[in-house]
Amino acid sequence: MASPTCSADTLAAMFGGNTTNADGAAAFICDQFNTISTKFSDTTYAVDSTYLLFSAYLVFSMQLGFAMLCAGSVRAKNTMNIMLTNVLDAAAGGLFYYLFGFAFAFGTPSNGFIGKHNFALQNMPSSDFDYSYFLYQWAFAIAAAGITSGSIAERTQFVAYLIYSAFLTGFVYPVVSHWFWSVDGWASPTNMDNLFLGSGVIDFAGSGVVHMVGGIAGLYGALIEGPRIGRFDHSGRSVALRGHSASLVVLGTFLLWFGWYGFNPGSFVKILSPYESGSYYGQWSAVGRTAVTTTLAGCTAALTTLFGKRILSGHWNVVDVCNGLLGGFAAITSGCSVVDPWAAVICGFVAACVLTGFNKLAEKMKYDDPLEAAQLHGGCGAWGIIFTGLFAKEKYVNEVYPGKPGRPYGLFMGGGGKLLAAHLIQILVIIGFVSATMGPLFLILKKLGLLRISAEDETAGMDMTRHGGFAYVYHDDDDQKLGLPMRKIEPAVSS
Amino acid sequence: MASPTCSADTLAAMFGGNTTNADGAAAFICDQFNTISTKFSDTTYAVDSTYLLFSAYLVFSMQLGFAMLCAGSVRAKNTMNIMLTNVLDAAAGGLFYYLFGFAFAFGTPSNGFIGKHNFALQNMPSSDFDYSYFLYQWAFAIAAAGITSGSIAERTQFVAYLIYSAFLTGFVYPVVSHWFWSVDGWASPTNMDNLFLGSGVIDFAGSGVVHMVGGIAGLYGALIEGPRIGRFDHSGRSVALRGHSASLVVLGTFLLWFGWYGFNPGSFVKILSPYESGSYYGQWSAVGRTAVTTTLAGCTAALTTLFGKRILSGHWNVVDVCNGLLGGFAAITSGCSVVDPWAAVICGFVAACVLTGFNKLAEKMKYDDPLEAAQLHGGCGAWGIIFTGLFAKEKYVNEVYPGKPGRPYGLFMGGGGKLLAAHLIQILVIIGFVSATMGPLFLILKKLGLLRISAEDETAGMDMTRHGGFAYVYHDDDDQKLGLPMRKIEPAVSS
Amino acid sequence: MASPTCSADTLAAMFGGNTTNADGAAAFICDQFNTISTKFSDTTYAVDSTYLLFSAYLVFSMQLGFAMLCAGSVRAKNTMNIMLTNVLDAAAGGLFYYLFGFAFAFGTPSNGFIGKHNFALQNMPSSDFDYSYFLYQWAFAIAAAGITSGSIAERTQFVAYLIYSAFLTGFVYPVVSHWFWSVDGWASPTNMDNLFLGSGVIDFAGSGVVHMVGGIAGLYGALIEGPRIGRFDHSGRSVALRGHSASLVVLGTFLLWFGWYGFNPGSFVKILSPYESGSYYGQWSAVGRTAVTTTLAGCTAALTTLFGKRILSGHWNVVDVCNGLLGGFAAITSGCSVVDPWAAVICGFVAACVLTGFNKLAEKMKYDDPLEAAQLHGGCGAWGIIFTGLFAKEKYVNEVYPGKPGRPYGLFMGGGGKLLAAHLIQILVIIGFVSATMGPLFLILKKLGLLRISAEDETAGMDMTRHGGFAYVYHDDDDQKLGLPMRKIEPAVSS
Repeated sequence: MASPTCSADTLAAMFGGNTTNADGAAAFICDQFNTISTKFSDTTYAVDSTYLLFSAYLVFSMQLGFAMLCAGSVRAKNTMNIMLTNVLDAAAGGLFYYLFGFAFAFGTPSNGFIGKHNFALQNMPSSDFDYSYFLYQWAFAIAAAGITSGSIAERTQFVAYLIYSAFLTGFVYPVVSHWFWSVDGWASPTNMDNLFLGSGVIDFAGSGVVHMVGGIAGLYGALIEGPRIGRFDHSGRSVALRGHSASLVVLGTFLLWFGWYGFNPGSFVKILSPYESGSYYGQWSAVGRTAVTTTLAGCTAALTTLFGKRILSGHWNVVDVCNGLLGGFAAITSGCSVVDPWAAVICGFVAACVLTGFNKLAEKMKYDDPLEAAQLHGGCGAWGIIFTGLFAKEKYVNEVYPGKPGRPYGLFMGGGGKLLAAHLIQILVIIGFVSATMGPLFLILKKLGLLRISAEDETAGMDMTRHGGFAYVYHDDDDQKLGLPMRKIEPAVSS
Repeated sequence: MASPTCSADTLAAMFGGNTTNADGAAAFICDQFNTISTKFSDTTYAVDSTYLLFSAYLVFSMQLGFAMLCAGSVRAKNTMNIMLTNVLDAAAGGLFYYLFGFAFAFGTPSNGFIGKHNFALQNMPSSDFDYSYFLYQWAFAIAAAGITSGSIAERTQFVAYLIYSAFLTGFVYPVVSHWFWSVDGWASPTNMDNLFLGSGVIDFAGSGVVHMVGGIAGLYGALIEGPRIGRFDHSGRSVALRGHSASLVVLGTFLLWFGWYGFNPGSFVKILSPYESGSYYGQWSAVGRTAVTTTLAGCTAALTTLFGKRILSGHWNVVDVCNGLLGGFAAITSGCSVVDPWAAVICGFVAACVLTGFNKLAEKMKYDDPLEAAQLHGGCGAWGIIFTGLFAKEKYVNEVYPGKPGRPYGLFMGGGGKLLAAHLIQILVIIGFVSATMGPLFLILKKLGLLRISAEDETAGMDMTRHGGFAYVYHDDDDQKLGLPMRKIEPAVSS
Repeated sequence: MASPTCSADTLAAMFGGNTTNADGAAAFICDQFNTISTKFSDTTYAVDSTYLLFSAYLVFSMQLGFAMLCAGSVRAKNTMNIMLTNVLDAAAGGLFYYLFGFAFAFGTPSNGFIGKHNFALQNMPSSDFDYSYFLYQWAFAIAAAGITSGSIAERTQFVAYLIYSAFLTGFVYPVVSHWFWSVDGWASPTNMDNLFLGSGVIDFAGSGVVHMVGGIAGLYGALIEGPRIGRFDHSGRSVALRGHSASLVVLGTFLLWFGWYGFNPGSFVKILSPYESGSYYGQWSAVGRTAVTTTLAGCTAALTTLFGKRILSGHWNVVDVCNGLLGGFAAITSGCSVVDPWAAVICGFVAACVLTGFNKLAEKMKYDDPLEAAQLHGGCGAWGIIFTGLFAKEKYVNEVYPGKPGRPYGLFMGGGGKLLAAHLIQILVIIGFVSATMGPLFLILKKLGLLRISAEDETAGMDMTRHGGFAYVYHDDDDQKLGLPMRKIEPAVSS
């Protein structure tokens, strides 16, 4: 927001010699204007900070959503285990991201590969970053680790979890986010002096940076561990190991939906930025449009999944619809700010097909991912990156990434193939980097015997063997001791 | 917010001929003022959009609240079914409201009955509407469908649900909201040239538009389907078919309470509007007051229900208290912005009595509504409309609906009977329109054999027969196969 | 935010006699500036109100968090009972705090001990308080009562609950909050003319005012009632009476975490306040920093508890980690706004040790507190008050409490011992006042036979005996009547 600038000298000269005190009058007036300018600056900081902080809180609520989604999707005997991993993603992520993750991701100036300033929030706040920005990015970092924990659920040693989670949140994710989001990342669309392919990658809220990173990491974990006992029977047929609570799955899905309004529209970071002087149209509209594209992609993916699964399985399945919905969200996350609402409908439709396809493939390959995390976040995330390369609209690209007219935009919108090319490279680079870091990590953990729990423990469930007991106690033992068969009491009959 | 306007000509004339460059000085000063004016406009858009977007997110969270409330209020065997309907209200509602619902509701200029512009968000954003407004209204639309799904729970075919939900969200609800909320709706309080009865209907956040519409639709569905098997025994006595989880009921109720702060105070749409120049008192105060009246009405209704039910049934019943609370909210939703806090206490007290009375009546009539949705949203909603006609305060009415001094206000506040008359007509019109649309729809579905599931399916539960299995699996089959009686393990004894 | 002031006389004199209409020009210009000044005032009210209202909604969501945490932490047979108390804290608290609680707490001018204006929101809004401030404070008041209900869970008569809850929310808590938070409270850091020990107590968001008050009240309740039946066996060994749902515990904990972002950063009440003219650094930064210190204290406490309990008990226990997390939050609540992020890490580490220590002590003393509420909110709350006296930073203290340079600050930061002394006195005074009020109340209730339920009722569970039935019905009776062994149906095998 450019400030009004007032030159007292210029004004004094215009008042001229006949004015009793031209300098005084001019200074008087310009002082007022300068004070006003300062107050606009203050107001803008306060409005943008309010917007960013509450967006960060929404993104944080996704961790709760993940916890409930994961809990409901595993068997009752592993509920405590998976919930503990979700709490720890947030807690350990908080410390690691404070100590060095944020510095790796945003500590400019950097070498383009990894940041190297602001460790432990040194020199914060600055004109570049305030604390609210750190909080927002922390909430993103812990989401990535949460995705991976879904893929390797119900069979992973807790110590392995602690190691990979720290490595992912503290190093792998920050580095990738530096590349695509930091102002001097090698593929950042805001790296003005050196735009990769003349374009940079538009991964607005992280279909690649968050979802593919988490999903590909999960893919390696689940591949290297192998499927859960009983997931494929002796003749190789797939056996559904159903999660223990659809209510928790729906609760988690809706919470993720709620939080996604912080994730996608919140990624603008600022809301008080006009696009056209004195118009009703500004960044606040783009923020609203992003909330709408996000909503429509998820809704379309949910409906597509509903009818698709009805045809394929004969059931109207709420858990599948929830996963479809989340697949639509994961896909639109890349392009949410630069596409039209109608394009978001296409994004969601294809995302549902991609998810169904990858799930079929996973079953064929005997790949077991209790949360479908690799298929959903990896597969739909990759589709979202391609989608943005196809459907990004010129006008929106230039508004959201201003100061560089003539940027490439979506292939189908007439913007040429450079953005798409950059995006395909993003997919390959993320797959490559995560493979080169998380793959070896999981292999080493396996070699050291730290990765998978014993067959006995897996059958008994981790809650009883590692976490002090089952998550649920619906029948109290003391009832039985007292011989009170409480459950047999008839429901009250009134009037 | 009126902009400061600066006429350079006027100012130059006052500087006069002795000023060296009077035109230049005047233009210089006015340019600064005009820039400032533009920046205030930008700031106002950003602040109001932030306010509206986060309010919309809160209203969306009510869908999660509905899902949990409904899930907890039905028997375990129908949990997947009812949660799927809640997810689909949001998802299908998203697409339909985008394609035509919003256009029917707010596509001005209209004929007063139904809007006809802005299909698929064409010509958005404009000076009238931004994307955030669409998002906010979509979150309202899906709430209406959610209400109805409660009335017909546990016995309705899924395909019937898909049909009525689309019809309600896509047509019935948008038309009613056009009448009372669109600037050219025939009974809108903002239809300045043509105020119905010189007053218009003050249904601020929709006791009628949302709650009665959803409740009356549910009433027809439940009446035409008839009660669930076993709800009334052979001798006609009422048998409580208790919901399977009070925890989910409380979770859902609190989430609805949380979301209601988006529903009621959010309906101001804007927060940066002064009422008196330079005062601490402005629309921000009215927004806060609305949050307070909402809170007090719900709290009073909850306490009234607690003691009322204690006297009637001998129990302190948390589920009844939750329903009482929601009845208080449904009632205050109409007048929340134009009544004093003390009046909200009266509103809540009567709402609890209305709900208890309608529940007694329903039992007498052998009407079965698993969520008490018709009684709660229909009955308390109607009371709320009457309440506003009685207690709306002159000062507040003129502040919230400015530009037309001398409007009628509440009968008990000395404002005459015209507002109350308009409100009684609103009740009749909503009953009539919903009866004329949803009644025939449910009858046709019944004739076609698409409405109610078979007795066998109802007894077995829809989750098993239609949705792929039960919502809960607390005992894993593989435990039993392995002969591990996990539940019998004693709780750990420490120290 | 100081307004630009424009003196037309001064300006006219500077224009002087040669200007055609010096008075007119000066008035013209000053009118514009005055209009601008008014608009900044409006903008500030709107931005601050938006910030405060959404913070209040977040704090309210903690009531939901408490309900779920409490529900999950008790045995299934008392779920309805504890959830009802949580709903009633909010509902009864709403009415009482409206009628007199807010007046006792903030009805200035007062005698320093108790407020005496603004009963039933009379004379609201004013330049001192708007409705949003009442709503925010109400959400705090109900949190205190919620803490206490955890300590006395599973064995308290419902009528006793109604009495102590009303007394705590309506009198004890408001009085304590008046002392430390109202502008004329005797120990308030904003009582400029009369700063207690030249310092006042910095209990920013209420480690003492909320957490210790709730915790100490719970301590008396639990001590006077004695432990639950079976909590200590015949030989005096401690027997864990495990809560019935770890999922609800995690859900509640994450919701409390989410809501704490309203509790701590929200306690600034305003966000649009610059600290340095025209700088990026202002109250918005302090708000963000407060969110960061809150996060880090909780995260550190969670990790400390994880490894500490692993060493002590051999388990990785998610419920313990949740309690540790909340202990970190309760501790940082006092100093969150005036300490650096690194200090918050220390705060969290010690809080986890304090909680573990008090839990050991409680076990030794055969003190039974189902939610560990006295240990957590009382113990960690007290540590947080001391922590602030040690680590409060000079710069932050003067920014957050401006207008009185040279205030004492943290002992370890070189600020002398006066702040610490004031804080130690706060601890003693809170213990004393709560002991003198809640202690006798619980004793009287005991004497009257109104406090504890009968042994039969306790064994059977309160839900069945007092609240109309169990909270959960997973097996429908009608299934069994029809001889359908639904649970035995095999999970679907696909493909």
